Amino acid sequence: MRTELGESPDVVERLLAAARPTVQAVARTVHDGGIRTVVIAARGTSDHAAVYAQYVLGARNGLIVAPATPSLSSLYDRPPRFDGTLVLGISQSGSSPDVISVLGDARSQGAPTVAITNEPDSELALAADRVIELGAGPERAVAATKTYLAEIAIVAMLSAALSGEAASWSELAAAPDAMRAALATEAAVERAAAALGGIEECIVLARGYQYATAREWALKLKELTHVVADPYSSADFRHGPIALVEQGFPVLAVASAGPAVAGMIELLDVLASRGAEILVLSDDAGARERGTGLELPAQPEWLSPLAAIIPAQLFAYHLALAKGLDPDAPRNLTKVTRTV
Amino acid sequence: MRTELGESPDVVERLLAAARPTVQAVARTVHDGGIRTVVIAARGTSDHAAVYAQYVLGARNGLIVAPATPSLSSLYDRPPRFDGTLVLGISQSGSSPDVISVLGDARSQGAPTVAITNEPDSELALAADRVIELGAGPERAVAATKTYLAEIAIVAMLSAALSGEAASWSELAAAPDAMRAALATEAAVERAAAALGGIEECIVLARGYQYATAREWALKLKELTHVVADPYSSADFRHGPIALVEQGFPVLAVASAGPAVAGMIELLDVLASRGAEILVLSDDAGARERGTGLELPAQPEWLSPLAAIIPAQLFAYHLALAKGLDPDAPRNLTKVTRTV
Repeated sequence: MRTELGESPDVVERLLAAARPTVQAVARTVHDGGIRTVVIAARGTSDHAAVYAQYVLGARNGLIVAPATPSLSSLYDRPPRFDGTLVLGISQSGSSPDVISVLGDARSQGAPTVAITNEPDSELALAADRVIELGAGPERAVAATKTYLAEIAIVAMLSAALSGEAASWSELAAAPDAMRAALATEAAVERAAAALGGIEECIVLARGYQYATAREWALKLKELTHVVADPYSSADFRHGPIALVEQGFPVLAVASAGPAVAGMIELLDVLASRGAEILVLSDDAGARERGTGLELPAQPEWLSPLAAIIPAQLFAYHLALAKGLDPDAPRNLTKVTRTV
Repeated sequence: MRTELGESPDVVERLLAAARPTVQAVARTVHDGGIRTVVIAARGTSDHAAVYAQYVLGARNGLIVAPATPSLSSLYDRPPRFDGTLVLGISQSGSSPDVISVLGDARSQGAPTVAITNEPDSELALAADRVIELGAGPERAVAATKTYLAEIAIVAMLSAALSGEAASWSELAAAPDAMRAALATEAAVERAAAALGGIEECIVLARGYQYATAREWALKLKELTHVVADPYSSADFRHGPIALVEQGFPVLAVASAGPAVAGMIELLDVLASRGAEILVLSDDAGARERGTGLELPAQPEWLSPLAAIIPAQLFAYHLALAKGLDPDAPRNLTKVTRTV
């Protein structure tokens, strides 16, 4: 896992060149078809790339993004009407029957379909009109790392292609170096993980673009460390779950500089006053001061999930080691999960 | 809270008559406008009515349902293009600025907007073209109960109106009696809660229509009992979080008879073999045998969340009492939460 995690910047750098023609073709399909709604079918880690898409394609490209409800295709045989929407299936292995069934229904209804997968010969790829290959090389660790980065890079590329702005592509070109800078924070991340070695449950907070990072961080913690990590938008958190917080309750937060950071700082101050033990991943010094701070490289906010997930992945990895667990052999899991 | 919870069947019964003209008018707007996509802005409990809408309006009415990303309106000032979609805001109080801002953006773009709220004079109601009033009477308990039932009843009514099927309305007319039958299971629910008085974390599983129930059950547990309750679709649960389950780990499940029940039984057998402590809410005897079973009244599956949440609410209420907590005064919370 640690080796594959370290390959992420190179994977994304290659992808920026290799996947661009197909991504541009998908963007033309959207423009030419007057498409306004995108449906995304995905599970587990890949579903968090879909969460990122909700924000980036909404804010930058004006699209409505809906998560698929795969059971309506795979179990109930009552899919919604997909025609006129763009339907994406995101899956490292390309082999989960429920995700495949959504693309099958969409294609049979005439909707343009795209598979985003590391396995270009997979059943998901065969079910789609177009395939965008992650090109991440084999991912053997059960916990996905570099393929998640590749998936969110493809979503970001799709946003750049839809916008047609050269500046977006320039910003994307700088992302691999930001990811390398994030990898270089490992020693500090390892210390923070060791200090929290005893946690059994926690909340993971973020808002806006980084909400995807909170979701994926929480999943990595569950998979690798058995910590019951519950991710929340910092707004939704105030509508009920904040009742959980008492003296010593661990709160992890991701907060990038931008319109959401002031609200996050305000919330962290409330949680600190109730005794929460706070860890903050941020490129904003004010946010980092709200607890144990881990520095993120400065990036345009829309691309910030590309760097931010790396210290989060490293944190889960080192917390697993601190707990005496093997991050390469998580309990109860196999690499490929096929759900119907 | 317990008093208001008990009022739910009467609230829904009144609503079936009182709200029908407005719901029919919204359905005509959808048909006449050729609308295919519904965007829903909601927080907390109301967001789970939106989850129900994803399934019921997708499976029965062919609509694509997208949860709003309110921060794109309220913080980033970069809303997506709402025109051509139906935009619903669901909020008991009608006063959360982020939900209001989504409806404001949608209306200014020319999209039809509907407020579903218990407060017809609220800012949310003023921001919308049409208001569907919950008519639940004052809800003083911080933990929403009867207003959640009213919200999902309105979603079900919208589905019936869109389908134009008389049979759907007949099925809906029987829902209040199913809710009364669910209330009558209280003694068994109280015993089950007392037996689980020591839990500090748990997973809540469901699939399809009942996924909304799992989400709302988990929220009630967090608000009232401080149990870190993590809700999952039983498919998503296999893609990572299943790593959490070990000897004695508490698993709560909601499983209605229908296409999803066989997969749930299979998953519960896997979890039982790993030592999970299982509680099942179901109208299916086979599912109930997988652990401590609590019986749900038989209902058409699309309406099953209307009865199923009642024993779940009662369970959270009695678990709070078993833990020595006051369900009418949950920690850190106020009735109205205003997030931007």
